[in-house]
Amino acid sequence: MHILKVAISGLGSVGQQLAKLLVSRHHYYLDKYQYDVRIVGVCSSKSGIIAEQGLSLEAVLDKSQHTSGLTGTLFINTVPADILIEAGPTELHSGEPGLSYIRMALSRRMQVVCLSKGALVHDVAGLMQLAKQHATSMLFSGATASALPTMDLLQVSLAGCRIKQVKAILTGTTNMILSEMMDTGCRFDEALHKAQLLGIAEPDPSLDTQGWDTANKITIIANAVFAAKVKVTEIKRDCIEHITPEHIGKWKLANLTPRLIGIINNDGAQCEVAVKLELFPQHHPFATVHGRTKAIYVDTAEMGEMFVIGGASNLQATAAAALKDLELIMRSIVV
Amino acid sequence: MHILKVAISGLGSVGQQLAKLLVSRHHYYLDKYQYDVRIVGVCSSKSGIIAEQGLSLEAVLDKSQHTSGLTGTLFINTVPADILIEAGPTELHSGEPGLSYIRMALSRRMQVVCLSKGALVHDVAGLMQLAKQHATSMLFSGATASALPTMDLLQVSLAGCRIKQVKAILTGTTNMILSEMMDTGCRFDEALHKAQLLGIAEPDPSLDTQGWDTANKITIIANAVFAAKVKVTEIKRDCIEHITPEHIGKWKLANLTPRLIGIINNDGAQCEVAVKLELFPQHHPFATVHGRTKAIYVDTAEMGEMFVIGGASNLQATAAAALKDLELIMRSIVV
Repeated sequence: MHILKVAISGLGSVGQQLAKLLVSRHHYYLDKYQYDVRIVGVCSSKSGIIAEQGLSLEAVLDKSQHTSGLTGTLFINTVPADILIEAGPTELHSGEPGLSYIRMALSRRMQVVCLSKGALVHDVAGLMQLAKQHATSMLFSGATASALPTMDLLQVSLAGCRIKQVKAILTGTTNMILSEMMDTGCRFDEALHKAQLLGIAEPDPSLDTQGWDTANKITIIANAVFAAKVKVTEIKRDCIEHITPEHIGKWKLANLTPRLIGIINNDGAQCEVAVKLELFPQHHPFATVHGRTKAIYVDTAEMGEMFVIGGASNLQATAAAALKDLELIMRSIVV
Repeated sequence: MHILKVAISGLGSVGQQLAKLLVSRHHYYLDKYQYDVRIVGVCSSKSGIIAEQGLSLEAVLDKSQHTSGLTGTLFINTVPADILIEAGPTELHSGEPGLSYIRMALSRRMQVVCLSKGALVHDVAGLMQLAKQHATSMLFSGATASALPTMDLLQVSLAGCRIKQVKAILTGTTNMILSEMMDTGCRFDEALHKAQLLGIAEPDPSLDTQGWDTANKITIIANAVFAAKVKVTEIKRDCIEHITPEHIGKWKLANLTPRLIGIINNDGAQCEVAVKLELFPQHHPFATVHGRTKAIYVDTAEMGEMFVIGGASNLQATAAAALKDLELIMRSIVV
């Protein structure tokens, strides 16, 4: 039996869910991998707590027990962890503060599981290079589409295959709005309003409806898996705000279903990355991807075509995706 | 750079394709993992060839260069390989000769990649236990459904999740026959005859049409992932031979699509395993799984529901599935 020390940066709703799920799996990890997994430190934006022997779930969640100022650089440089799970909010353009946290953790030879997108959008290739340089690793299954397998599909299930094309429905909100418009014939703003009432769309929904969320995720995948070296601000990006009931009516008549997708075309030499509004015929699996559901399609030279549809889009599913990465790290660590 | 020595038992069409694909990826493995992967031995039912420095593809494929009698026990006990890929034909009831080959290879602490089903149907749990006992591993992605990810979906993409249900279309032939009957309204024997003309159904198709192929695959998954301890001969098993155009007509009117599926229900305490003919409504993803295509559905407590559809069912796809396992082993070996 070995002790595996985990630190969590970010204690919002995802970070808290993560801590709860991790603690609930303590016996499972012990049985399956002989790892005594302990949370040895957590930090939020203003405070943190560190205990090398491990923290109770109560101490993790109760910020009144945390030390003011024990966050950021100080936290990452002090916490005696084997693995950092970065689950904080990040600014999408700079990737901060997650980017600095991850760089520092990798430099300290921690393994990193990343749930926040900003750092990855900004420099996933650089972070992967840094991990390699320090003989450690960084996994980020939960960052690209929560529970829908994207990175592990491409890197594990399709290991060794030449991937010719990826198409993916990566944003639940946009798919929900498009589904609502198709189902009811309503206007874009009505469908958006309904998604906001259900708590699915943000008060400022433009990140989703202007295609930025899909663009961020497909950029991460393209740069991580295909070494595409693309910038999210430079890829072609369709949005869904201009779609009218007239468009919907015309598509329905033609038995076509609109989906906002991230797309990667890889001919071996060049990699085209974009966000596109595409129309799918009635019997295409993407036409069955309804509401908030996400999906990914991959075409390979050796294994043909593959669709993955589903994976819940809630806090627990996102936390479970991060813990999937944690478990993959457990399997690969030799102690 | 390290040398990774691979042996292949079985030189039928899959074994040959495997050798070709493996040799074609030599530079890829060298670049990505710093492994100089060499085939150091191959055997068929009557002869074999071993060369510790590595064999050319020509020497692998040209049986006239092989030594008569260098097969079976003698081959496995002599070949100086790190990894055995078992790709031979196996007798389904006894699992032989694959079962003996794999047991011997694991006892010699080789890693094993298994493409043949017989040994796994017979005793996958025992083989996994043997692998653990000798601190080695056995992977078998290609055995359960060729390129469709099943084992890696359940064990990697859903690592840590409580899996409540698995439903899977695992036999291309039966799905092809059901699709043909739905498309054309023809009789079972007509659809079967067409599948035989296309070379998809075997001359004796009963293994597929009586549900045995699906039963074999779902038994392997249930015993390997859920420790279900079921025997393939004891599970409930529907077949498709009794389906008439009258059944088809009635289902079509009700917008239902028949699919022969392997099913595992896991309530945490008990595991129910069966092969069932199930009817799916029009917008269910399984209704879009047409012809030879395979698919798997998984329902989990933490990540919700997930469908995977596709993966080619040809020699190259099967070989690529075995090499996916080989690559996963490369990632986990520390030299």
